[in-house]
Amino acid sequence: MEASQEIELEGHIIDSGIMTSVFDRIMDMGGNFEVTTFEIGKKKTDSSFASLIVRTEKPEELNAILSEIHRFGARILIRENINLVPAEGDKIVPQGFYSTTNHPTFVNFQGNTLTVQDIEMDCLIVINPAKHEAQCIPMAKLKTGDLVVVGERGVRITPPERPRELSNFEFMHGNVSSERPTQTIIANIAKEIKEIKQKNGKIAIVGGPAIIHTGASPALAKLIKNGFIDTVFAGNALATHDIEYTLYGTSLGMDILTGKPTVGGHKNHIYAISRIIKAGSIRNAVNTGIVNSGIMYECIKNNVPYVLAGSIRDDGPLPDVVTDTIVAQDKIREYVKDCSMVLMVATLLHSIAVGNCLPSYVKTICVDINPSSVTKLMDRGTMQAIGVVSDAGTFLPILAKELGIEL
Amino acid sequence: MEASQEIELEGHIIDSGIMTSVFDRIMDMGGNFEVTTFEIGKKKTDSSFASLIVRTEKPEELNAILSEIHRFGARILIRENINLVPAEGDKIVPQGFYSTTNHPTFVNFQGNTLTVQDIEMDCLIVINPAKHEAQCIPMAKLKTGDLVVVGERGVRITPPERPRELSNFEFMHGNVSSERPTQTIIANIAKEIKEIKQKNGKIAIVGGPAIIHTGASPALAKLIKNGFIDTVFAGNALATHDIEYTLYGTSLGMDILTGKPTVGGHKNHIYAISRIIKAGSIRNAVNTGIVNSGIMYECIKNNVPYVLAGSIRDDGPLPDVVTDTIVAQDKIREYVKDCSMVLMVATLLHSIAVGNCLPSYVKTICVDINPSSVTKLMDRGTMQAIGVVSDAGTFLPILAKELGIEL
Amino acid sequence: MEASQEIELEGHIIDSGIMTSVFDRIMDMGGNFEVTTFEIGKKKTDSSFASLIVRTEKPEELNAILSEIHRFGARILIRENINLVPAEGDKIVPQGFYSTTNHPTFVNFQGNTLTVQDIEMDCLIVINPAKHEAQCIPMAKLKTGDLVVVGERGVRITPPERPRELSNFEFMHGNVSSERPTQTIIANIAKEIKEIKQKNGKIAIVGGPAIIHTGASPALAKLIKNGFIDTVFAGNALATHDIEYTLYGTSLGMDILTGKPTVGGHKNHIYAISRIIKAGSIRNAVNTGIVNSGIMYECIKNNVPYVLAGSIRDDGPLPDVVTDTIVAQDKIREYVKDCSMVLMVATLLHSIAVGNCLPSYVKTICVDINPSSVTKLMDRGTMQAIGVVSDAGTFLPILAKELGIEL
Amino acid sequence: MEASQEIELEGHIIDSGIMTSVFDRIMDMGGNFEVTTFEIGKKKTDSSFASLIVRTEKPEELNAILSEIHRFGARILIRENINLVPAEGDKIVPQGFYSTTNHPTFVNFQGNTLTVQDIEMDCLIVINPAKHEAQCIPMAKLKTGDLVVVGERGVRITPPERPRELSNFEFMHGNVSSERPTQTIIANIAKEIKEIKQKNGKIAIVGGPAIIHTGASPALAKLIKNGFIDTVFAGNALATHDIEYTLYGTSLGMDILTGKPTVGGHKNHIYAISRIIKAGSIRNAVNTGIVNSGIMYECIKNNVPYVLAGSIRDDGPLPDVVTDTIVAQDKIREYVKDCSMVLMVATLLHSIAVGNCLPSYVKTICVDINPSSVTKLMDRGTMQAIGVVSDAGTFLPILAKELGIEL
Repeated sequence: MEASQEIELEGHIIDSGIMTSVFDRIMDMGGNFEVTTFEIGKKKTDSSFASLIVRTEKPEELNAILSEIHRFGARILIRENINLVPAEGDKIVPQGFYSTTNHPTFVNFQGNTLTVQDIEMDCLIVINPAKHEAQCIPMAKLKTGDLVVVGERGVRITPPERPRELSNFEFMHGNVSSERPTQTIIANIAKEIKEIKQKNGKIAIVGGPAIIHTGASPALAKLIKNGFIDTVFAGNALATHDIEYTLYGTSLGMDILTGKPTVGGHKNHIYAISRIIKAGSIRNAVNTGIVNSGIMYECIKNNVPYVLAGSIRDDGPLPDVVTDTIVAQDKIREYVKDCSMVLMVATLLHSIAVGNCLPSYVKTICVDINPSSVTKLMDRGTMQAIGVVSDAGTFLPILAKELGIEL
Repeated sequence: MEASQEIELEGHIIDSGIMTSVFDRIMDMGGNFEVTTFEIGKKKTDSSFASLIVRTEKPEELNAILSEIHRFGARILIRENINLVPAEGDKIVPQGFYSTTNHPTFVNFQGNTLTVQDIEMDCLIVINPAKHEAQCIPMAKLKTGDLVVVGERGVRITPPERPRELSNFEFMHGNVSSERPTQTIIANIAKEIKEIKQKNGKIAIVGGPAIIHTGASPALAKLIKNGFIDTVFAGNALATHDIEYTLYGTSLGMDILTGKPTVGGHKNHIYAISRIIKAGSIRNAVNTGIVNSGIMYECIKNNVPYVLAGSIRDDGPLPDVVTDTIVAQDKIREYVKDCSMVLMVATLLHSIAVGNCLPSYVKTICVDINPSSVTKLMDRGTMQAIGVVSDAGTFLPILAKELGIEL
Repeated sequence: MEASQEIELEGHIIDSGIMTSVFDRIMDMGGNFEVTTFEIGKKKTDSSFASLIVRTEKPEELNAILSEIHRFGARILIRENINLVPAEGDKIVPQGFYSTTNHPTFVNFQGNTLTVQDIEMDCLIVINPAKHEAQCIPMAKLKTGDLVVVGERGVRITPPERPRELSNFEFMHGNVSSERPTQTIIANIAKEIKEIKQKNGKIAIVGGPAIIHTGASPALAKLIKNGFIDTVFAGNALATHDIEYTLYGTSLGMDILTGKPTVGGHKNHIYAISRIIKAGSIRNAVNTGIVNSGIMYECIKNNVPYVLAGSIRDDGPLPDVVTDTIVAQDKIREYVKDCSMVLMVATLLHSIAVGNCLPSYVKTICVDINPSSVTKLMDRGTMQAIGVVSDAGTFLPILAKELGIEL
Repeated sequence: MEASQEIELEGHIIDSGIMTSVFDRIMDMGGNFEVTTFEIGKKKTDSSFASLIVRTEKPEELNAILSEIHRFGARILIRENINLVPAEGDKIVPQGFYSTTNHPTFVNFQGNTLTVQDIEMDCLIVINPAKHEAQCIPMAKLKTGDLVVVGERGVRITPPERPRELSNFEFMHGNVSSERPTQTIIANIAKEIKEIKQKNGKIAIVGGPAIIHTGASPALAKLIKNGFIDTVFAGNALATHDIEYTLYGTSLGMDILTGKPTVGGHKNHIYAISRIIKAGSIRNAVNTGIVNSGIMYECIKNNVPYVLAGSIRDDGPLPDVVTDTIVAQDKIREYVKDCSMVLMVATLLHSIAVGNCLPSYVKTICVDINPSSVTKLMDRGTMQAIGVVSDAGTFLPILAKELGIEL
């Protein structure tokens, strides 16, 4: 019994490779297709449009194909309503649940199009029929009876399209290589940052302790002070060594001004944590003058919120650290909202965690000395990440300089 | 005002480099010394002994030197009692607190030598005067009024000594290189494992999800089934993908038998977590036949305890995951006790976390495709770690074969 | 003055991304196009066909676009003859010379289509009008007066097409990751090797000295002995340490059976070289029984040719080493001809050198513990390379086993 | 039959670990020893002295031990003359030949002490009895009848000693880590460079093409122009891309000012080579105004000699390239003489080649984005190398700035 369905593709489907991917998957999965309309945008800013009829020998094959190509942005022409199934228990997903991408997503519910709120990858969509709202939630927040979207019917996504007018640094997509002109790249990132700030966009940084170890914390502190950073995501280690550096001039006991280990310096980070515990919080320590410079100091002084997420490696930890990882994820979700750019520097764990919560349209730059860190981030779904293989200890100071900051 | 103090060194102080380090530090820090006794062990199994008088121009210099060389095992001849200071608040460390190494540690308390219990690095020593007990505790557990050892006086440590009879794989110490005979190394590790098991020693594994992704989970499952592994330390990802592989044959949606992504496979790990949530726990899922093979299955069936520590990257997580990182650290501490060997495979986060809790005499092998993972582990204090730069996907199957296991 | 040109695309242009690339580049470079024909292959084995008219505002823009999209396989419909310009001096390229890709290439010369011989990337095409032959040559071989093809007119290339029926390991294209099922990948490579040998295809190996250091030389020797390898490309180091291992059991002085350095072993590789120098050649040393096992031994015994290319790091070198790098390149060119597969193991220098000489249709597998080695190889133009991030010391023994060889 | 020999150690034998290594090896190899004299330098600048009697059960064991500990600088008290054996053929080493270290070496010949000229590792010592000269030569230069030193008798070496007054960057020895304060390290290197130049010391750079790709060539050109670099060691790629950048603004076709690939840019490096071939040499191209800026330009203009060593990866190559690797090694030897510092940036092949020719007292700094490059360099014997894990594209500009150069 043959089956067929008309689908359509719209946007920069050619130069973003979407059309190719759709054709490819249909044929890989044993289907055929006929292109019924194919209009290519003539001007650089035009989008293209294609409609095609997908044909398979069996209906179940058709369903598998439609489910798959949905993820590339293909949508079924006939506007159908979504299927809803109530969750049978807390955190228990219904069979066939719609697993979200990180692309902007819309659902047809009772004849209306709802924008899915707070989209992030690998989550579920839950409908509030009373409020006519569609919400993206991680499985951990699913409650018994929640109405969960099942299957792709009635769901539409808009994957990122590479417009022909390349942005400042978009040329870098693709292979992650250490053989790129670093200063040019940093200048482009600086330009992008300035443009975002001119439009009052928000920029978050995700940072690891190597920022302190490599001596780049004054540069990051200045970036915060000068209003370029709106949120800081980090762990106990970044905050601890930042404060250790402020209090004792060392990072893990190494004197940053000389690069040499100091006598007794191995205790400094414990002292730093202890002093903050005694003060009650980083904010108190700043307000009482105990901490008077550094990354965390500038966060407090400039009302830049931070999330310090706990990890099992932590000493202490600082009282500001969110030790429960699920609670920390929620904090990340809360603060990552509305960011236009996320700068990830020298931390794989926190970068993947924040990347998991990002919609695909957020500009994401991952700076790491190890090329495979970027690859892993992209393998985990943060496909929009642009990798810069460089050293935090030189990257941040040069970035600050490009942004007109005196160090 | 000149100051001087006689100290002594004992053990394999020459070939382990301890004597050199002590001489070196004294002179680096501006002191002088005179060797009063120097007896070198004549036979391979003999230890050596040296006593020396350290001299400085000022008493405070002498104290700094004694504090520093203490960490290499130098001990003050005159048996003094430790200094104790009560903690002024929960988690607040006294000034000058004794920061532990991960070496076996002894304190003189009221004329008696107490062995410090549960030694691990970067912690404090608290004395229970009533019970005449010395306990190593992380700062997070310090309570108001706890009697904390301050300064090095009365504390003695015994750093690891490299005996001249090298153990099976000890030759590998030093540079971490991918240019070593892998099969020889694996054979040596297998031999060491067998010897430990013959003496009823305990072996723990710390593993990352790459074990599943690289197709090595059947090998690890067999190692557990055959009694070579006594504890498993991992995160949500290893357990989730292990169960995903058992239920669906995939890992993060990739079919392990073909290496190809499967249609709809990106949902499999969410389904896997959801099914365990529905069952209540991994144990229940095993007992009701939902999960009938794999790493976690063998843990349950063979009563091998596991700690699944949460991280901010986690989907779900599984109900067995300890989401609070401080609680998870305590679980690690509990289960790592009495291990004779820890095998760390393809995870830096969990390896450093477990490494933080290990005494320095536990044989620690770190297998990673990235040489800098091993370097980082050692930089964080797990100096005894031996690095094997290899691929989990080939390492574990070959190790299983060397242990006589049919795959 | 507007300009336009009709071009056509043929083959698996959709699923190999060729059509997308062509559309993309035209628009990026300021042109427009109209699709005049677009036939998509209905069956898996069918190829597709598209013809389009490219339009620009100025003729020079059209030329730039045609030159660029030519490299993706676009061809101009009207069959024009090539342009030829004589070289003004030895090794001096004419302005606008046609720079070759590594794809199969054809030229229209005096109304006939000539296949370009010995195609490799970044070279020139020289026409012998008397013999009606087109030859690809590196600039180093260009002689005064040679007729060099200039511009893309009359040149047609056929880039590799990804057929829908994936070959054994083609699924791996794309990101280079250490998180793949290694044993599955090796099994697939073994299957591919067997299929090639069944069709009497030739397989070359490019190997670095880490093969010996990691203890994998017996596995490679057996692969050669069993007829799986037809050519060996290596340097002085691989051959020297192979012979050192045969004569003394060490590699750079390290005993491969124990992994430990041997007393005086640092001289062994010099002795090994000296003994071959005394014998006159590796062949003589094998024939006189000095060398009686190992990789080089099996090459001699099984008439497997080898090219040992010199490098500035070399000790000795062995008399068989071609110390002039240009001569060595020519030897590589000579022996790499007609290979169906090249296996590159643990050497970046030799892999890039051999990769430079390979047509794009040769299956190329690059095994390295460092993911960025594969990235670099592909950045240098060997785009068809498939990366396997693994350890030579385990990869080769497992591959041998998969090929039915007892070790 | 027992055997014994008195040996002595002198210099900073304690804090450089020499004494420990000697004690260690004697006992590892089954010997015993008695310390007869042991004088430790009281002041920072004093050296220490120890004499000991080594005892073994058999004479051959004693010889093996003496041979081994010789490499750590132990010398036999009774001044014996060296043993000499004539080479039986060109490039054929005598059995038991003395294999050089890269430490300063002295031989007793006919009652006199000769300093071995041009010491480098893994070579032989040949005596010219007429001239009373001792020369270090690689095996490739050994001629029939040359008198080769055999055994360690009569040979004395002085391994590098770490004086207690640390030099500017010596603190970094040991683990290679990306977690060091980069700007501090660069400042220290700059300070060291200035000190060397004040003493009229020579500084060489060994560089890879990534210097151009990462946009650091203007910085290096300025370093040369300002007299900080006395010799350049590189390959065809660095020179070619430097000239490509000068002529076309691209490196491998990528526009360095924008980071984007240019249309037709893949031909630029071939054009660059061709233009130099036409000019005859880089010098001619500079003198005739074809090349008017860049690294090679500054070399020519400032009479900074360069060695461009060929490799099998080369396109072209440039006429200045020494294509024979053995000839290139000799050129390296010639120009590396009398260097006080060698800076190795982003090339493993050339770094190892130059490292092979360096005495151990030459300050050697290896800058690479990949930590294992430094490890490999040290594994190949250049133990004095100090690793800086950073990005050439930021390292060189910051270094130039630290040296007071405007970019």
